[in-house]
Amino acid sequence: MNKYSAEIRIVLRNGILDAQGKTIESSLRSLDFPQLTNVKVGKVINLQVEAEDETSAKKLVDNASKKLLANTIIEDYFITLTKVE
Amino acid sequence: MNKYSAEIRIVLRNGILDAQGKTIESSLRSLDFPQLTNVKVGKVINLQVEAEDETSAKKLVDNASKKLLANTIIEDYFITLTKVE
Repeated sequence: MNKYSAEIRIVLRNGILDAQGKTIESSLRSLDFPQLTNVKVGKVINLQVEAEDETSAKKLVDNASKKLLANTIIEDYFITLTKVE
Repeated sequence: MNKYSAEIRIVLRNGILDAQGKTIESSLRSLDFPQLTNVKVGKVINLQVEAEDETSAKKLVDNASKKLLANTIIEDYFITLTKVE
């Protein structure tokens, strides 16, 4: 068995209102950061995977993302895998 | 003025209890994903920066992270900048 470190970035799909992002953007303006715009807020989940190989590790994380981690109706997710020695 | 795309990853500092991560981990076990462990949940914020150069863009994002985006008592943040053409 090999160990992998996985990172899943979960962001709202295009066209879905990002209320948290809008709020942060208006707070940034009030705090005198008008140069920072177009704020999008997402989640990042890091976890460890035990699997035979990279393909099955990716499949596991993909399944878990679909079933539990992401709400695929309104969210997109992106998986990055790194082998841990 | 140049445009940069910034990504700020905000994660709990080591030693701070990640209750959300623990909950996800136990849900993963119930859903028959015992190969996925050590779950950590963080935030990822994407935004656009207008600045003279990369150094001042980074400074702006760093200041905004300290003042608004991250709670530096319990959270660490990591900034990635990319130039936008």
